[in-house]
Amino acid sequence: MTSEQQFVDAALRAWKFNVDRVEASFGKLSDEQLQAQVAPGRNRLLYLLGHLAAVHDRMLPLLGIGPRQHPELDSMFLENADSGAPAPVASAALKDALIDADHALWNAFSQWSPADWLSKHTAVSDEDFAKEPHRNRLSVLLSRNSHLAFHHGQIVLTEPRR
Amino acid sequence: MTSEQQFVDAALRAWKFNVDRVEASFGKLSDEQLQAQVAPGRNRLLYLLGHLAAVHDRMLPLLGIGPRQHPELDSMFLENADSGAPAPVASAALKDALIDADHALWNAFSQWSPADWLSKHTAVSDEDFAKEPHRNRLSVLLSRNSHLAFHHGQIVLTEPRR
Repeated sequence: MTSEQQFVDAALRAWKFNVDRVEASFGKLSDEQLQAQVAPGRNRLLYLLGHLAAVHDRMLPLLGIGPRQHPELDSMFLENADSGAPAPVASAALKDALIDADHALWNAFSQWSPADWLSKHTAVSDEDFAKEPHRNRLSVLLSRNSHLAFHHGQIVLTEPRR
Repeated sequence: MTSEQQFVDAALRAWKFNVDRVEASFGKLSDEQLQAQVAPGRNRLLYLLGHLAAVHDRMLPLLGIGPRQHPELDSMFLENADSGAPAPVASAALKDALIDADHALWNAFSQWSPADWLSKHTAVSDEDFAKEPHRNRLSVLLSRNSHLAFHHGQIVLTEPRR
């Protein structure tokens, strides 16, 4: 491995660590358990599941991997706060949407070269990227990884205390 | 910037983002507000403040930067769960311990070369590192960054809803 590949490897391990633990947390929850709020008056687990599915699905076009698969999630899980309403789709479908997005992302990530990671994401113009080369795909990965860990910290509050 | 430096830059920006927002969250809290639990029966903000100060302080020897400054935090904030007991030191001193650790870390981070980041941390032996070169300083930074985002997701649950 070149040193550049070692940097990519570290970032991918950090991402995979959070993806795996979040998918495991949601995987064992029933429909009823997904109705729990992470704290009084705060988001339900169901909302966080749909929210993460939507955010990761949006990473597909953002990183130039492919088109959205589930734009129908945005209204309930991204553009609006948790209303407490029933989900528009079964919770199993939400779990699948998250897993499918994570799988499509990983499929691309595991093929990219270091140069691919340092290339621009699709939400920045060529002109802006020339001035701000840190707005690359790697920065998206790292910020979405923080986002994932942020919500995992909330999800675990509904689990039995160790 | 070389491409290796760009990788380091992205990792440092991601770390700084979380450090800044966590320090800002704690900075505005009074002693009384720090007594709030992030969810019923869960850690108090005070505990998370001491916990993050202890974990970041431990990064100093772990990354070969220098000795611990606040080992006295470990018993209450690392080795034991939140007991609800008063802190052994004033909360202002806990805030200072976190800020001081973050400052000492940043001072080292901003001077390290890409090769420094890929070198081993102090908790792995030479033999193990030869077999598992991913156990480097960069991996510590990324995992502690997830840890920081994880707890920030809990801290914000006590803030007024936006």
